[in-house]
Amino acid sequence: MSVILLTPDELTNSSETRLSLEDLFRRDFVLHDPEARWINDTDVVYKSENGHVIKLNIETNATTLLLENTTFVTFKASKHSVSPDLKYVLLAYDVKQIFHYSYTASYVIYNIHTREVWELNPPEVEDSILQYAAWGVQGQQLIYIFENNIYYQPDIKSSSLRLTSSGKEGIIFNGIADWLYEEELLHSHIAHWWSPDGERLAFLMINDSLVPNMVIPRFTGALYPKGKQYPYPKAGQMNPTIKLYVVNLYGPTHTLELMPPDSFKSREYYITMVKWVSNTKTVVRWLNRPQNISILTVCETTTGACSRKYEMTSDTWLSKQNEEPVFSRDGSKFFMTVPVKQGGRGEFHHIAMFLVQSKSEQITVRHLTSGNWEVIKILAYDETTQKIYFLSTETSPRGRQLYSASTEGLLNRQCISCNFMKEQCTYFEASFSPMNQHFLLLCKGPGVPVVSLHSTENPAKYFILEGNSMLKEAILKKKIIKSEIKMLHIDDYELPLQLSFPKDFTDRNQYALLLIMDEEPGGQLVTDKFHIDWDSVLVDTDNVITARFDGRGSGFQGLKILQEIHRRLGSVEVKDQIAAVKFLLKQPYIDSKRLSIFGKGYGGYIASMILKSDEKLFKCGSVIAPITDLKLYASAFSERYLGMPSREESTYQASSVLHNIHGLKEENILIIHGTADTKVHFQHSAELIKHLIKAGVNYTMQVYPDEGHNISEKSKYHLYSTILRFFSDCLKEEIPVLPQEPEEDE
Amino acid sequence: MSVILLTPDELTNSSETRLSLEDLFRRDFVLHDPEARWINDTDVVYKSENGHVIKLNIETNATTLLLENTTFVTFKASKHSVSPDLKYVLLAYDVKQIFHYSYTASYVIYNIHTREVWELNPPEVEDSILQYAAWGVQGQQLIYIFENNIYYQPDIKSSSLRLTSSGKEGIIFNGIADWLYEEELLHSHIAHWWSPDGERLAFLMINDSLVPNMVIPRFTGALYPKGKQYPYPKAGQMNPTIKLYVVNLYGPTHTLELMPPDSFKSREYYITMVKWVSNTKTVVRWLNRPQNISILTVCETTTGACSRKYEMTSDTWLSKQNEEPVFSRDGSKFFMTVPVKQGGRGEFHHIAMFLVQSKSEQITVRHLTSGNWEVIKILAYDETTQKIYFLSTETSPRGRQLYSASTEGLLNRQCISCNFMKEQCTYFEASFSPMNQHFLLLCKGPGVPVVSLHSTENPAKYFILEGNSMLKEAILKKKIIKSEIKMLHIDDYELPLQLSFPKDFTDRNQYALLLIMDEEPGGQLVTDKFHIDWDSVLVDTDNVITARFDGRGSGFQGLKILQEIHRRLGSVEVKDQIAAVKFLLKQPYIDSKRLSIFGKGYGGYIASMILKSDEKLFKCGSVIAPITDLKLYASAFSERYLGMPSREESTYQASSVLHNIHGLKEENILIIHGTADTKVHFQHSAELIKHLIKAGVNYTMQVYPDEGHNISEKSKYHLYSTILRFFSDCLKEEIPVLPQEPEEDE
Repeated sequence: MSVILLTPDELTNSSETRLSLEDLFRRDFVLHDPEARWINDTDVVYKSENGHVIKLNIETNATTLLLENTTFVTFKASKHSVSPDLKYVLLAYDVKQIFHYSYTASYVIYNIHTREVWELNPPEVEDSILQYAAWGVQGQQLIYIFENNIYYQPDIKSSSLRLTSSGKEGIIFNGIADWLYEEELLHSHIAHWWSPDGERLAFLMINDSLVPNMVIPRFTGALYPKGKQYPYPKAGQMNPTIKLYVVNLYGPTHTLELMPPDSFKSREYYITMVKWVSNTKTVVRWLNRPQNISILTVCETTTGACSRKYEMTSDTWLSKQNEEPVFSRDGSKFFMTVPVKQGGRGEFHHIAMFLVQSKSEQITVRHLTSGNWEVIKILAYDETTQKIYFLSTETSPRGRQLYSASTEGLLNRQCISCNFMKEQCTYFEASFSPMNQHFLLLCKGPGVPVVSLHSTENPAKYFILEGNSMLKEAILKKKIIKSEIKMLHIDDYELPLQLSFPKDFTDRNQYALLLIMDEEPGGQLVTDKFHIDWDSVLVDTDNVITARFDGRGSGFQGLKILQEIHRRLGSVEVKDQIAAVKFLLKQPYIDSKRLSIFGKGYGGYIASMILKSDEKLFKCGSVIAPITDLKLYASAFSERYLGMPSREESTYQASSVLHNIHGLKEENILIIHGTADTKVHFQHSAELIKHLIKAGVNYTMQVYPDEGHNISEKSKYHLYSTILRFFSDCLKEEIPVLPQEPEEDE
Repeated sequence: MSVILLTPDELTNSSETRLSLEDLFRRDFVLHDPEARWINDTDVVYKSENGHVIKLNIETNATTLLLENTTFVTFKASKHSVSPDLKYVLLAYDVKQIFHYSYTASYVIYNIHTREVWELNPPEVEDSILQYAAWGVQGQQLIYIFENNIYYQPDIKSSSLRLTSSGKEGIIFNGIADWLYEEELLHSHIAHWWSPDGERLAFLMINDSLVPNMVIPRFTGALYPKGKQYPYPKAGQMNPTIKLYVVNLYGPTHTLELMPPDSFKSREYYITMVKWVSNTKTVVRWLNRPQNISILTVCETTTGACSRKYEMTSDTWLSKQNEEPVFSRDGSKFFMTVPVKQGGRGEFHHIAMFLVQSKSEQITVRHLTSGNWEVIKILAYDETTQKIYFLSTETSPRGRQLYSASTEGLLNRQCISCNFMKEQCTYFEASFSPMNQHFLLLCKGPGVPVVSLHSTENPAKYFILEGNSMLKEAILKKKIIKSEIKMLHIDDYELPLQLSFPKDFTDRNQYALLLIMDEEPGGQLVTDKFHIDWDSVLVDTDNVITARFDGRGSGFQGLKILQEIHRRLGSVEVKDQIAAVKFLLKQPYIDSKRLSIFGKGYGGYIASMILKSDEKLFKCGSVIAPITDLKLYASAFSERYLGMPSREESTYQASSVLHNIHGLKEENILIIHGTADTKVHFQHSAELIKHLIKAGVNYTMQVYPDEGHNISEKSKYHLYSTILRFFSDCLKEEIPVLPQEPEEDE
């Protein structure tokens, strides 16, 4: 045995403790999001760490307390928003989550100065539960949605105007998304958009009358619990139909339908994006059901006429269909990312400038960026400097930096964020003020997140709005996990594998491994984002190495990698993850007998497919709310990758976990599912279990009664400790046992 | 180490193998029930071991093959019955279980001689699914139930007559029980009764229109699985109302209601027994909702007039309410068991003879039996010899012997079965031929079950119909479990504890223990019945001792023991089981660190309450479909023991597993539940889990999607192996581990 001499430095280190599950639930481990937003070019409203709502003037640094934290307590409110005229606050209480983004709540309007309070109710309704309520864009404009109809109030004192009357629970949705639009198409429950002057409102009417209903049972909380049902189109089933309307709010209300492009009129289509580009014009993106033809139109909302601006087609499917083009004020040009071929490495998303010829309406395109990297988001176009601001992966596919580029001449691309907190920050988001004079910079990692305010003219001059110093300090006291990225060469691709090592890692020891799957195709696991979660506890306290690998099907590294999964979902991802594991098995520090895998949703699907494959690499695996058959999952998702089940029966069967379930025989599996999951129905796990029982396969189950796709806060500790216990038990080193002494009598 | 010399005897023994789970599923381990029934005084119809349906004449020993086993295969039939005239067989196919006894099926009528086949369908319906179908009592009379209405056919060729029209799915039930009547009151789904001459039919009309519906979700088997709902009155909720009708079938049909006793007219009541005592008279038992007043009436079905014959009341609740009194042919006397006080040991059920004075209608009672034992069932009254035949526990509370007694003079009680296969048989059932000339004797244990045919005159002369010789032989090859009964003295009671030991048991070793709970209150676990099940495997292969203890609340040992649980359900049983464990802990051969517990339904409830108690005796426990709150369980059950929840709120709370759930913290629990359980709803386990999650308690779960209270045959192997693995892991001896060598770097 070697004697280790402790230097004073190491003595300090010894006060570090291992990260425990309890730590994750400690107050000082909470990441604070100030939810800052611009209200004009110099003022930001945000929520301080202690819960006050504050207005900050970035030029004078003057702060105004708009709402005390105690007000939230008084009204049992959990959400707030300040009126455009900064006189009122809308407070939501009794908030109940419905789907991913949507929730119902009751609302009060609170006068900041007089502290007067009004309840927000539709005419002749008391104690109403609303599906949505928010301020408009001017003064005290209010909008809310009740029983699938939109209501409008010009100001808080005037009476409500019902803008639609077709709303019908579970059938016709006005201004709010149904499940499919919320979860798979808009990625928001909001399906209405204000014109900049607040005089017009565009909204979707989603008709689910032909969509089959899925029943979500209820088990607890009543003697006779009642389930609920909601329209959910599974692969190949009837989809909702959609119409886009604009209603003018000033003067006698008048509603006009904006018509789809002629070529879509007799087809099924989605609307994936609506944005106002002036007070009377909107830009709309229409996408056919197979998701390989997309048409961008600009619509004149005074007449309803839409003219097609850009059409895209694809051999696979079209991605980034929610992207909002950025328009110049006069509408003569707009900016949008389009796939641009970069030699043999395939297409990457880059900024294109579209110039609309005023007379001929012909459009010319100029590409403003190019390279083996992606433009993530176009943030702003500054008309005076003719500069465009955007986020890209130019420095690293794992990072996001803020860039500017000129739209003229040599384009002159410049990185704005690259030198900002260099060690701590390489992954940014940003939000520009209305006139682009200032911007909020949100550093998301790799260090503890920071929110800062910058002037566009001199970005190096900044003000830190939130430094999350408490979390920073708390983490400093913990052993820090070391992370390393290795690039693997698979099928002409260089793909990143991220390993997290326990702090006292040494390659003379052998470690257990947990391979973590991504939750959605087209996502990215290996990034510079700050991350601390239950898997960090596993690394730290159980000496496990965690691995994340972005194989084919992952995003932000060009379209070729992303689209490799087309019609091969559940096959190429499995191959690549196995290749990554085989690479790891060559490393001396990996104990080949202690490999495990984890995934949720689509990740649970891939994990199951891997466990089912012929390669018996893993000792155990855990899946949360796994998709087990794409036929049981949402139309817009399954069809995007696999097509219509009627035509692609064998593709669907090959991609099903339930097919040839015997492959799962040898591993130890933990299946976790909430019975009220509205995204991946409990049905998926139920079918899986039924097949496992039939095949005589052992597994462990954790059911969360009446919980949804995301297990609630109150059950999270239980969930995490269940997962940690499972992996800890499975991955612990086998300790040689004493041979048992034979009993005397035998 | 000692060297063991094997004697030839021991060599033989060594060919014995331990009982494995696979054995239980082997063909030769199946217990065959010939389903023998009398068709007249000399003929029995039964199903042979290879599946033929055979008529046997007991006097000539002549057998007639009525139906070949291949016929079942041809029609995919799984149930059969032979018409009273022995010319036709009714075959049921596509049998789908509904509740405990009820099932739907489609039927064909098969002509035994011509092999002609007819489908059985209501008029103008094709491919019907019936709720019930059976022969009447004469010739080819047929009755069936479709859409909750009764249909009658005088013979197989004539057309059907609909006898009721009020039937409505899930609301009005004619001739068939709703859930409550089937499971908790009649213990059968049949709610109609034929007069002996087949000219009249008595039937119940059960009205569930005010009973709340429980929803049973469905998860598998369809893209959009639909749940089902059915009326289920939970404790204190609206019960079904009930009417009893008699319809005459010869001549123009005419339906008459038999009215409840006057004292019940404005109250809620149950009907628990209907029996024809002559061609025009029925005997009916009416029970008030609190189940402490019961009135026996005899009704003249030609007029509808009912006269009260006997009224019983109780301070607790009335038991044996399904018992059918046995009447003399002229109706001048009847026999029934009534509680009779036996000194300090309380009441026991004994036979009383009721003599009806022909003029005054006054009734005199004579008690025919007495003693510290119970009459289980009155089987027959022989008018010529004036003898009564019955089963009793006179020789042992764990056994059931067939006795006769004279109804006159010195009564002269004689045991008929006591000397029959003495070693093998001490637990009998019996069935007498219509004129009592012969009887079937069903030996249920302790040896392998045997069915024999006897003459009443000379019972010692018999014929073995089924000896289950294959099973007998199969078991001989297995190590035999040794069983022992110890009497424990608790609170003035002597209560039986049965222990099953592994064959090579020696009290110099220490063994793990599994304590098994009974499934229903008033039941009996310690009996002489033949038993081989998963727990036998645990004894044999894991060297575990199993224990069964009939504490207070158990049946067949007098009413005092049974009724100790009144208003104390979940408390006295817990105390007694704990007392039994503490007794066992004093035995040198019990390893106090390896105790476990198991229970299903009510047994799962008691097991949970024991695990929750302050006594932390158990290392682990498994519960199947546990009742966790009596408020969520059936009205007729919960109210019997605890009263109405509105009045007994604290009693209900104290009896709930969910109350003070923290008590469950220290044990390792396996919860098993089918999600489509219609008896103990999955709700019970869901509430339990929700409370456990909240309290941060660990547990293991096994969910059987869309399975009921009794897990289906196809999942049984999985269920058993899950339970066995759980107990085997939990109860295995801790093996001392080698201290781990410190790693070099630490």
